[in-house]
Amino acid sequence: IGMGASLPPARPVEHAQYDFGGGFPDPASFPYDGIVEATARMMKAEGAQALTYGTPQGYLGLRELVCHKYELFEGLKVKPENIVVSNGSGHALSLAFSAFLDVGDVMITEAPTFSGTLHTIRRHGPEIVDVPVDGDGLVTSVLREKLAALRKQGRRCKLIYTIPNFQNPAGPTLTLKRRQEVVALAQEFDTVILEDDAYGELRFEGEPQPSLFSLDTSGRVVRAGTISKILGAGMRLGWLLAPSALVPVLQSFLFGGGVAPFTSRVSTWYMRDNMAEHVKVLVNVYRDKRDAMLRGLWEILKGTDVEISKPEGGFFIWIKLPAGTDTKRLQTLAGEARVQYTAGPAFFPNGGGERHIRLAFSYESPEKCYEGARLLARAIVNAKA
Amino acid sequence: IGMGASLPPARPVEHAQYDFGGGFPDPASFPYDGIVEATARMMKAEGAQALTYGTPQGYLGLRELVCHKYELFEGLKVKPENIVVSNGSGHALSLAFSAFLDVGDVMITEAPTFSGTLHTIRRHGPEIVDVPVDGDGLVTSVLREKLAALRKQGRRCKLIYTIPNFQNPAGPTLTLKRRQEVVALAQEFDTVILEDDAYGELRFEGEPQPSLFSLDTSGRVVRAGTISKILGAGMRLGWLLAPSALVPVLQSFLFGGGVAPFTSRVSTWYMRDNMAEHVKVLVNVYRDKRDAMLRGLWEILKGTDVEISKPEGGFFIWIKLPAGTDTKRLQTLAGEARVQYTAGPAFFPNGGGERHIRLAFSYESPEKCYEGARLLARAIVNAKA
Repeated sequence: IGMGASLPPARPVEHAQYDFGGGFPDPASFPYDGIVEATARMMKAEGAQALTYGTPQGYLGLRELVCHKYELFEGLKVKPENIVVSNGSGHALSLAFSAFLDVGDVMITEAPTFSGTLHTIRRHGPEIVDVPVDGDGLVTSVLREKLAALRKQGRRCKLIYTIPNFQNPAGPTLTLKRRQEVVALAQEFDTVILEDDAYGELRFEGEPQPSLFSLDTSGRVVRAGTISKILGAGMRLGWLLAPSALVPVLQSFLFGGGVAPFTSRVSTWYMRDNMAEHVKVLVNVYRDKRDAMLRGLWEILKGTDVEISKPEGGFFIWIKLPAGTDTKRLQTLAGEARVQYTAGPAFFPNGGGERHIRLAFSYESPEKCYEGARLLARAIVNAKA
Repeated sequence: IGMGASLPPARPVEHAQYDFGGGFPDPASFPYDGIVEATARMMKAEGAQALTYGTPQGYLGLRELVCHKYELFEGLKVKPENIVVSNGSGHALSLAFSAFLDVGDVMITEAPTFSGTLHTIRRHGPEIVDVPVDGDGLVTSVLREKLAALRKQGRRCKLIYTIPNFQNPAGPTLTLKRRQEVVALAQEFDTVILEDDAYGELRFEGEPQPSLFSLDTSGRVVRAGTISKILGAGMRLGWLLAPSALVPVLQSFLFGGGVAPFTSRVSTWYMRDNMAEHVKVLVNVYRDKRDAMLRGLWEILKGTDVEISKPEGGFFIWIKLPAGTDTKRLQTLAGEARVQYTAGPAFFPNGGGERHIRLAFSYESPEKCYEGARLLARAIVNAKA
């Protein structure tokens, strides 16, 4: 096989006709020229550092930019020494699981929760106890019950994994009252919270809530972030924001040569001039797509007992299918319409979710979100058992 | 702290006056303009793919390029489906340790061996049995004894980690006969070999030997490679070459979003036009540096009982200090001369190496390699207890 034989021609990523599957960012919004230009400028100023080994904690310029981001969007003041850079937020989360979990330990996730994280968690071998989500987010009364039940058995929950903003996949944003309760419960039951916040800036409406990290005063919250949703997932840059005492242990699972010196610098050089403005553009882009998808769904499904989330931000819509939907049939019909979605069971750690599906409105154009939603909605109607 | 407040001015990486510590590539040889240009070309053709999620196994174009590299430099024909891309070879090695080792398992390394890998191994919690290295590389007779002793105890060695080319730090290249023996022993004792080959192309003299991977017929060898030494470590791109049956398990520890879509493409677009030529340049660059360092060392140390390796390639010289050297005093004197080296004990899994030091000739200019070597050699002479 020759060198570069498969280099593809200029074309977008291959997807289904209507790809509502993964949380792929909108390719039309990628700042192609800006990144090329930032690469050239950065290489002049910092080329030697960009092309050699970095520090395990990550490029200081990027860590400063992350601090600036937190201050800009939520008034949270944190320091670069509390940021650990990673190869995307999936890797960031895995650092926390590696640090806190041994095989057989108990941890808690939401049900449903992000399927990608469930994969990472399973490789770490803990027992997962799940807590449901309602319109206000993680149900804290059930969280208390589960923590208390574990204590009764002489076991300790090592970690609570939660997605407080535009929960993936279910959509709700955790209320302030519940945020305070989760933090208090972590303290009462001596456990750590892993707060996954990949979408926080992409809020279309409603009031932002303080992060669990900012509400905590006992050094128990580790927060994961990413530039995948506001610049480009192909950079594979994420981070953990952690209390000082936890930084060394999280860093101890960063193997080899410092994280991403080149892409850290390319991204930083682009974002320090463009982040706020670019995020504003994205909020409008994704709000339009969400609205188009919801319009398409409701035009066909109104009058049924379907339940459809309306998230205040992020990439996903969560659907509870009408009673009596034959989900196998739905899969066939949606396939025929070339609409890709993700079936609910992928998001449940211990079973369930058969009546649910998740749609990502992030990737396709508003027009295709609308059309594809209508096609899928018709498939749902026709999949009535 | 403001955004990008610490962006440094144009200057090289900060190091000691004579930095012979880590295996940093030569910053003067980085193809700065070529990479900027490759970024621009790639972005036009593949920007959408470069900025979104990739496949877990890694960018096909890069995997094809790696196959081409193996064929070009050693006539080895392998397929892209046997390559798993990683964030540098440190990450590649950690994938293998995660896949093959559980806490308490037994594995074998050379003594000395690469200190960075020892760190990664220790986080995985195995018991390390070590086997010495002589002028022909890993001592296979001792390897046999250790494997047999483990079998007698009813234990199995899960993995043998070896660096056959320009062994880091000791320098020897494993002979063909011993390569065959290592592969046969892995088969006889039912274990896996992890072959670390970060420097293979950077051979200044002598005949290349076939890789353990190419000698194996039983699907027991996983081989790690990297572009850190032939393009730039800041790209953080490495890979595992593995038998088909092992690819899925190695991949199962790749968390989140596909490895490095952006840097994989930038690097591929540069290297497919420039790799062979660039490696030729590098071979001359590093040979000159090695020779300058050896000249400086021997000018001062001849007549002592020092032992100094002369590796046929790679980045490192290994020194057995003259009898009676006070290594604490040496550390002070070398510090005063602003010469950075790595003390021997870092390379021994179970103690030892007090009389050894490792020098990297890769980073500094030939002039500084020569001067710094003389300064260090004088410090060695003066550190006589």
